Amino acid sequence: MSSLADKVKTFIRPEIKALSAYHVPEPGDTIKLDAMENPYQWPDDLINEWLDVIRDVELNRYPDPGARVLKQHLRESMDVPDDAEILLGNGSDELIQMIMMAMAGNGRSVLSVEPGFVMYKMIATFMDMPYVAMPLKEDFSIDEAEFLASIKTHQPAVIFLAYPNNPTSNLFDEQTIRNIIDAAPGVVVVDEAYHAFAEKSFMPMLKEYDNLLVMRTVSKMGLAGLRLGLLAGKAEWLNEFDKVRLPYNINILTQASAEFAIKNRHVLDKQTQQICIDREILFEELSKIKNITPYASHANFILVRVEDGQADKIFNSLKEQGVLIKNLNPVGGLLKECLRITVGTAEENEKFLAAFKAAL
Amino acid sequence: MSSLADKVKTFIRPEIKALSAYHVPEPGDTIKLDAMENPYQWPDDLINEWLDVIRDVELNRYPDPGARVLKQHLRESMDVPDDAEILLGNGSDELIQMIMMAMAGNGRSVLSVEPGFVMYKMIATFMDMPYVAMPLKEDFSIDEAEFLASIKTHQPAVIFLAYPNNPTSNLFDEQTIRNIIDAAPGVVVVDEAYHAFAEKSFMPMLKEYDNLLVMRTVSKMGLAGLRLGLLAGKAEWLNEFDKVRLPYNINILTQASAEFAIKNRHVLDKQTQQICIDREILFEELSKIKNITPYASHANFILVRVEDGQADKIFNSLKEQGVLIKNLNPVGGLLKECLRITVGTAEENEKFLAAFKAAL
Repeated sequence: MSSLADKVKTFIRPEIKALSAYHVPEPGDTIKLDAMENPYQWPDDLINEWLDVIRDVELNRYPDPGARVLKQHLRESMDVPDDAEILLGNGSDELIQMIMMAMAGNGRSVLSVEPGFVMYKMIATFMDMPYVAMPLKEDFSIDEAEFLASIKTHQPAVIFLAYPNNPTSNLFDEQTIRNIIDAAPGVVVVDEAYHAFAEKSFMPMLKEYDNLLVMRTVSKMGLAGLRLGLLAGKAEWLNEFDKVRLPYNINILTQASAEFAIKNRHVLDKQTQQICIDREILFEELSKIKNITPYASHANFILVRVEDGQADKIFNSLKEQGVLIKNLNPVGGLLKECLRITVGTAEENEKFLAAFKAAL
Repeated sequence: MSSLADKVKTFIRPEIKALSAYHVPEPGDTIKLDAMENPYQWPDDLINEWLDVIRDVELNRYPDPGARVLKQHLRESMDVPDDAEILLGNGSDELIQMIMMAMAGNGRSVLSVEPGFVMYKMIATFMDMPYVAMPLKEDFSIDEAEFLASIKTHQPAVIFLAYPNNPTSNLFDEQTIRNIIDAAPGVVVVDEAYHAFAEKSFMPMLKEYDNLLVMRTVSKMGLAGLRLGLLAGKAEWLNEFDKVRLPYNINILTQASAEFAIKNRHVLDKQTQQICIDREILFEELSKIKNITPYASHANFILVRVEDGQADKIFNSLKEQGVLIKNLNPVGGLLKECLRITVGTAEENEKFLAAFKAAL
């Protein structure tokens, strides 16, 4: 009879055993500027209308496995080309997982950039796929020659590029991405999680490329609680990913609520516009502070580099002052001494600025 | 430049390419007795109380990744032993996927029975794990000697046993399951999806075994729309599975609604009791019909075997008459000529019986 520890050692994949669980800090009673959330609630009359919809949801019934009505609304709202298919996930995370699950095996690999969205690497590990991350240049742009060389070497099944990139908030050069799509032997997923705050999108380019996939989420539009991500692209790819989708992955309340929110998108759009205005004000204020470097942002957060040895101190001081941001210094590399601040309400941004100045 | 078809062939795993997507029939305007749903809505005053809770949910914020409050309520409600950990999934499906994802690789295999819940095999294919299904005996019991021999041969990482079993509705012999747990080199997942309609559970046995995991869902309790499954067992296992959990897998509306439902469990329990009463009436009525064999059920559905060559005809006739059940005849084997009828309301059951008699 083997011990429990022996059983775990025998049957849990070593790469999983070696992982730490993804840590999400408890916010407590703080100003929460760590998770790229939209800080705004809905007006009362909209909430009432929404609850009237929710009242009629049949919790005792399984959700529509195809989420057909919701998909149609999303197609129109997100300008998905007519000849592109749509696949929904329980957040983008689940879409990333489906893509890799359908492709994993036989050395098929994943290529992305560093720094980039942490879940690409994390889920590649879950799926036991080789993961290659090409370092960005100092200005957070893609080193195109190096990236193309890496495609040639690794022949990746899937390339992930966030547009704008998280946590660097910049838009990669469009022509560089086009060249990557041309060179890619498999698919290129352009992850437009922050699309609401950018001016550019690869959605229209779906018509030009048979190996481009565009990913969106409603999280940054103000619906982070719903967990809903969307992938658009050629049916030839999406039908395969759909096979590994768990049949009822989008629950009935998410379907009804997202549908309602999309129909009332003007409210979310107004919030987004406000966030963009406040982002510029915050950026300007940060630019006035000496010895720090804020980076121009196409997302709803601002990356700031502080002086050597200061990031951890500032992060902790802010926390003590009741403001939670994201400390990226532990990641190292290009993110050494970097802090990421989600754009909050005007009032939250002011409180952050005061606390930040006090911390310096 | 390779064609799209070539790209798909090169980068989609052949086992996935060979799969068909899981097909869920469109119900249309029918009496829906195909999916083991609880047929009852909540009373109006309860819906109003629930909407008051939902009103305060912050859709713009990510859900609590640990779902700590909900877990505590589930722990109490489902009598999870104090020293057992809890892991939540977006339905049991996601829990099955997490278990396999943490174990897949190096030939580690999955063992179950046939006929059994289809998602065990399906997800094993997604995760590229060898899947072995031992045929049940004619009376749907486990052939213990054969099963123990199969454990010896395959040394499975995980064994899945539904208790009661779907789609056969029987409870396997307790001592047989105990012997399987004793013999298993890895974990044994006792899937108690239909616990609400059974009298027995392995939950208390978590104290006795370090390789037993008990899985539950709220779907059959009347909350199929929410997609919430629970796994209970030793932290040594669950902490590993938790590493492959997507951080925000249980959305904010599911967390709030399940919490509310658990607090008002007496309403769901009353519905469950009614379903058990109606199941017995339905079984009695089916027993009176000549040339068919209904099987005694510990779940919220009844399996019926009809005469040779009749199942497809009866299924189609019922469908034409506006009653949707599940035709298991295409599965073959022990399920040849078998139909599965979910227990509905008394009125739905009567309508089914009338349509069934007309179809014979």
